[in-house]
Amino acid sequence: MTNFALMQELALRNNNKIVLLVMDGLGGLPMTPDGLTELEAAHTPNMDRLARQGTCGLSVPIAPGVTPGSGPAHLSLFGYDPIKYDIGRGVLEALGIGFDLGPEDLAARGNFCTVDQNGLITDRRAGRIPTETCVRLCEKLQDATGDALPGYQVFVRPVKEHRFALVLRGPGLGGQLTETDPLAVGKAPLPVRDESGTPEGARTAELVNRWIEAAREALKDEYPANSLNLRGLAKDPGLPNFTQIFNLRAGAIAIYPMYRGVAKLVGMTVLETGNTHQSEIDTLKQHWNDFDFFFVHIKYTDSRGEDGNFEAKVRVIEEVDSLIPQIEALKPYVLIVTGDHSTPAKLRSHSWHPVPTLLWSPDAMPDRCQVFGERECASLGGLGIFHATSLIPMALGHAGRLQRYGA
Amino acid sequence: MTNFALMQELALRNNNKIVLLVMDGLGGLPMTPDGLTELEAAHTPNMDRLARQGTCGLSVPIAPGVTPGSGPAHLSLFGYDPIKYDIGRGVLEALGIGFDLGPEDLAARGNFCTVDQNGLITDRRAGRIPTETCVRLCEKLQDATGDALPGYQVFVRPVKEHRFALVLRGPGLGGQLTETDPLAVGKAPLPVRDESGTPEGARTAELVNRWIEAAREALKDEYPANSLNLRGLAKDPGLPNFTQIFNLRAGAIAIYPMYRGVAKLVGMTVLETGNTHQSEIDTLKQHWNDFDFFFVHIKYTDSRGEDGNFEAKVRVIEEVDSLIPQIEALKPYVLIVTGDHSTPAKLRSHSWHPVPTLLWSPDAMPDRCQVFGERECASLGGLGIFHATSLIPMALGHAGRLQRYGA
Repeated sequence: MTNFALMQELALRNNNKIVLLVMDGLGGLPMTPDGLTELEAAHTPNMDRLARQGTCGLSVPIAPGVTPGSGPAHLSLFGYDPIKYDIGRGVLEALGIGFDLGPEDLAARGNFCTVDQNGLITDRRAGRIPTETCVRLCEKLQDATGDALPGYQVFVRPVKEHRFALVLRGPGLGGQLTETDPLAVGKAPLPVRDESGTPEGARTAELVNRWIEAAREALKDEYPANSLNLRGLAKDPGLPNFTQIFNLRAGAIAIYPMYRGVAKLVGMTVLETGNTHQSEIDTLKQHWNDFDFFFVHIKYTDSRGEDGNFEAKVRVIEEVDSLIPQIEALKPYVLIVTGDHSTPAKLRSHSWHPVPTLLWSPDAMPDRCQVFGERECASLGGLGIFHATSLIPMALGHAGRLQRYGA
Repeated sequence: MTNFALMQELALRNNNKIVLLVMDGLGGLPMTPDGLTELEAAHTPNMDRLARQGTCGLSVPIAPGVTPGSGPAHLSLFGYDPIKYDIGRGVLEALGIGFDLGPEDLAARGNFCTVDQNGLITDRRAGRIPTETCVRLCEKLQDATGDALPGYQVFVRPVKEHRFALVLRGPGLGGQLTETDPLAVGKAPLPVRDESGTPEGARTAELVNRWIEAAREALKDEYPANSLNLRGLAKDPGLPNFTQIFNLRAGAIAIYPMYRGVAKLVGMTVLETGNTHQSEIDTLKQHWNDFDFFFVHIKYTDSRGEDGNFEAKVRVIEEVDSLIPQIEALKPYVLIVTGDHSTPAKLRSHSWHPVPTLLWSPDAMPDRCQVFGERECASLGGLGIFHATSLIPMALGHAGRLQRYGA
């Protein structure tokens, strides 16, 4: 794992810029035993050229065999041990809907559920109510509970289907809070308890339980969503600052709120951008002189993978490839093209497979990879199979931004 | 990182000998995008044969992206975590000039500098005075300050240009001492302070400051070298003993003092040798029956890389290749050929690139490498990409010198 103290000791400033282009869920699988993966099937003349000139490999986001969520996968790409630095689910849920979470806010992931007349859970997801119902219920909860906790602001925001985000804002929130979901039907929701043993934690647990009571009262006639559970109650984890560790002024460009949110959590500057990949590249050009490092996030490779739409994922990759010359024209000293995890269309979900990665720099050791693809990276890549947390240190090395270690 | 306790538990004695042949700065880069590296361009029939029979890979000396100095790079090759075991710069400077450093000696790296009439630094390197001037000034300092600290011996030795080594010898030296160099012009040199909080440290800081005062007085008319700074004040770090960890009686053969010094720090026996590669091989033959393990160091691959002389580095590699049959004739059970780091002629300096490595043994798994070169190691090497600290344990395994772990 990245040695932050070592990076802080060695990292220096120069004018060599680094671009980290992340195609979410890039890695794939063949749909048939003899087939190609999405990346192998895509026509990617620009990435293939970078692969020939640069060095390639496969990155392991978390640990062998472990399928990452988007939060930890990005933390890992940013150099943070994703096991050590745990972002609470509540925080990720709030970031995912673009909520502007403050450092003292407490966030929770909420799930509407169904309970019987004895208060025992009969469906932990309330029959996966339509998202429109979720929106209406959140508005109802906002009205009914927004003023339930004097001295605190309450925000109830819809996410999708039975999921919503709850944020409490006010003084002295904290502690280590347990979840209410008993993770089984036939049981009653649990009260929130504090495990930190601090006065702050005890008080926060009491506040949250008061909110839950008011919220359940407001929901009691809303079958099937006549109750709720809270999970992952947490604050901004206060991660070490990316710029302080790596001595890189960092700009983040992403269409989706979640990725802007994770970038913000590590202290990157989140840049305003539009809704298309081209608008992201335009944002990169516009801010080129303001930062040393750019994180550019492409969402739709993952989306099409989750849809199980192999051909559509191929087309997203091809579109991104066509944008590469615009990035090259800016003359980055290091250009990395990778994903945060694999999302094979065959599996319609995130997967544990290592992620194809290429690192281009004039000082990279050219390996024997002739094209950019999973099997080329695996068989011929000069980077081998490496943990994703090594990527930023390797980028710094290639950019000449690390002093020599020792005499 | 190497588990020293495990090695101590498992390592046994037998008659199988191990040779670690280190070509300093071996790794390289192509000078042009389609070119070969120094090692790939060199005609190395002997190493190529060993590569075909043995197993190859790329070693990471410190961490991904990190360019090593020679001291930590060699510690890593010897199996020591180079981050955990930190050799002070003063100690390396003293070792580098062949000073016979005792276990209680305090060593510092000295830099002559220029100060103005207010004592503020105007040039931290005193205009990089010629080495002859450095020699004369060190003699002057030796005369003027050799008896400045009653009860202590003082050694002032020239290194190169503005650099010299200072060694204090006597009872009770120690502590954690700060450097005097403010690392900027326009500032006055700092006094040495102790950060250990021990009486020993406080006393040592006082002694060093007294020496500095006497030395600056002696230099005051020596423009541009009219003052000095001290850096990296440290003692022999007292590293765990190589023989005790790995159960290997170890002999070190190196032309340059620095590498003899690092070998001595880990407890190897330093063997007298001449100034040519052939003389090093002669020393190996002469002592063949006296040791289980030999470290043989080749300096000039690194030197020619630092010169930026691709062709000359190729010729050094070819010369070393021609010596290989003499080593094979001694019948080592394990022969490793590697470098401590890369020094591409293209970059004229040490670099972060992983280092080509071959391990030959009758019990090695032959991989598909047909020649010894960076890309062959990267694409076809059976050792993959590994941390350099794994090399000695792998050598022990191939030599049959590690017992089975567990039943």
